[in-house]
Amino acid sequence: MDYLEESLKLHKEWRGKLSITPKAPVADKRSLALAYTPGVARPCAEIAKNPEMSWELTGRGNTVAVVTDGTAVLGLGDIGPLAAMPVMEGKCVLFKAFGGIDAVPICLNTKSADEIVRTVTLLAPSFGGINLEDISAPRCFEIERRLKQTCDIPIFHDDQHGTAVVVLAALLNARLLLPKDAGRGELKIVISGAGAAGTAIAKLLIKAGFTRIIMCDKSGVIRRGDNLSEAHEELAKITNPDNLSGDLAAALRGANVFIGVSAGGLVSPEMARSMASNPILFPMANPVPEIMPDAAAAAGAFIVGTGRSDFPNQINNVLAFPGIMRGALDCRALDINEEMKMAAALAISELVSGEARPDYILPPPFDPRVGEAVARAVAAAARESGVARIG
Amino acid sequence: MDYLEESLKLHKEWRGKLSITPKAPVADKRSLALAYTPGVARPCAEIAKNPEMSWELTGRGNTVAVVTDGTAVLGLGDIGPLAAMPVMEGKCVLFKAFGGIDAVPICLNTKSADEIVRTVTLLAPSFGGINLEDISAPRCFEIERRLKQTCDIPIFHDDQHGTAVVVLAALLNARLLLPKDAGRGELKIVISGAGAAGTAIAKLLIKAGFTRIIMCDKSGVIRRGDNLSEAHEELAKITNPDNLSGDLAAALRGANVFIGVSAGGLVSPEMARSMASNPILFPMANPVPEIMPDAAAAAGAFIVGTGRSDFPNQINNVLAFPGIMRGALDCRALDINEEMKMAAALAISELVSGEARPDYILPPPFDPRVGEAVARAVAAAARESGVARIG
Repeated sequence: MDYLEESLKLHKEWRGKLSITPKAPVADKRSLALAYTPGVARPCAEIAKNPEMSWELTGRGNTVAVVTDGTAVLGLGDIGPLAAMPVMEGKCVLFKAFGGIDAVPICLNTKSADEIVRTVTLLAPSFGGINLEDISAPRCFEIERRLKQTCDIPIFHDDQHGTAVVVLAALLNARLLLPKDAGRGELKIVISGAGAAGTAIAKLLIKAGFTRIIMCDKSGVIRRGDNLSEAHEELAKITNPDNLSGDLAAALRGANVFIGVSAGGLVSPEMARSMASNPILFPMANPVPEIMPDAAAAAGAFIVGTGRSDFPNQINNVLAFPGIMRGALDCRALDINEEMKMAAALAISELVSGEARPDYILPPPFDPRVGEAVARAVAAAARESGVARIG
Repeated sequence: MDYLEESLKLHKEWRGKLSITPKAPVADKRSLALAYTPGVARPCAEIAKNPEMSWELTGRGNTVAVVTDGTAVLGLGDIGPLAAMPVMEGKCVLFKAFGGIDAVPICLNTKSADEIVRTVTLLAPSFGGINLEDISAPRCFEIERRLKQTCDIPIFHDDQHGTAVVVLAALLNARLLLPKDAGRGELKIVISGAGAAGTAIAKLLIKAGFTRIIMCDKSGVIRRGDNLSEAHEELAKITNPDNLSGDLAAALRGANVFIGVSAGGLVSPEMARSMASNPILFPMANPVPEIMPDAAAAAGAFIVGTGRSDFPNQINNVLAFPGIMRGALDCRALDINEEMKMAAALAISELVSGEARPDYILPPPFDPRVGEAVARAVAAAARESGVARIG
């Protein structure tokens, strides 16, 4: 990747990718007295009287924290909070560029789930939402679950749910293009990688009616009866209806869909050829997909989507998270629930479903319609499901 | 104050006084790949290899957190984290306007010193400095002391030290104007208010050689032998050399200087008249000074300074904190120590000492020379005292 050295050079020039700038002028005595003391005492007193006014009188309603502990950064793994900052700043750039959201990068110097939960809970009054980022599984599940209980603002782990939303959007349109009608529950779907992303994808697909899911990790197909971790135990209960066993190659035989969110787990041309006719492959490992698109096509793939921008059908979280958070903030949501994620996936897929082709199942990341369409759908779903503070 | 209603109206329009904007563009595939994945992996790896690179490759070196628990906000007291936010945002506006510093407002939902210390410690990798704000005494002393131990970035409680620095700067020039030469140790100085600001003023003045200090709180002069809180016990050891007793009126008899940072504690014209000849009065209570400047003048005051912008000699923290933090960031200081605060006070006073008059002992808050002069002096003092990371 020749982006790497140029990116390093640019980061040295930028010295940080964000700037915090005043919307209120302090150019003279009068403006200082209005933005700060003594005038500022009045909005403070108003919020003290009615805490809901914090949404009207501060930036909270348009501000999210992007929180990490630096344990699962990109392909780099556990590089710690200092080294995670360039990614968090980048995420904040995307929040502003695609969602109009003021985002603050917060890199925490702890890996303790207890401490992360407590810290974010204490920070919550300053923000309208929390985006958890690059926190390793299975701690990310516990942290998100507990924060949803302690905070009355949306908690969103993008590595899980942003990915799941975009995969679902892609799959909805891919299915429409299949030559033969197939019920959602009939498609055999194999997910390689049972960490944060794989787990969230499985759960959201099941919620959407894609119930025939087989999950694989490094030790093969996840099935009931094996000696599993708590997180995989839960997965075994909701996936693999026939309780198959074996490795990824065995799982892929006769499968309709492959979804790859693994660190390794290669798909060979033989394995691709062993799938059902007109197979759909989303090998999303970064930077090297589980199978390259040309190899997949040569092996008979009907539709291929990857995480990369240099191939068609880029399955990129940026289609989801800015609009999801935008919609949540717009209605001052208490939560980002399943209904809102589902609405986001539908909104993304519907933007292109009328003109979908095998090499065009998702809008491109820079499609200016996406953020707004997702935000609108998400806010509507929040209202319908009863988690919006304002109509 | 007719600023109040207009400020409320403006806060409704602003909906937050800060905007977080990208310095790095994400306008197309290429710029996205440089600011975010895959390019961003390179600066991350660089910091993982050498943590000091976080100063070069992220915004940390120009970013501070403005942290409060909302327990001692302006004249409003303990209004909580949500209601404190307009003040914190205002403070961040000032950091940018007067110091060029990106500042993030953080309002914590706890009053526990342990939790505040732990939370800020965990946040530290994201910031180059921490400005504590509007945290009530005596917890603010413990929180600052402990954070200075746990963090390797500067911790600065502005209500204490910003105030102390500007008072010292004002006093240095006021003393120069006295008709009769008086050694610093000869001046009898009475401080009304023994909370965060009063305590820090006393300590910094003593450090500067003004050793004849009497402190008063609501129960009168603080003296050894009384039944005192831990914080006041410490004050009693270093102030009131003759161990006087009595009330504020008694303390003021024959005093050369009055410094008011009280919530109440009025100074009557009679009390002002009982001071030594050519008395200096800094009644800084906000919004109503302990004695109004015209009443003080009528009672024989030689120099009067207040916290207010509508009288001469405004003693305003904004002269100090942006430049102090700017200087600390510029040399990547590990701490803000006594030497740096002293240097800041000198730098402020020297800007006007050549042309000082009784109604002009401090530069005005909008004097564009102040921030830079303070920053330069503070960074030099940091280097000399061995707390600068870079020369």
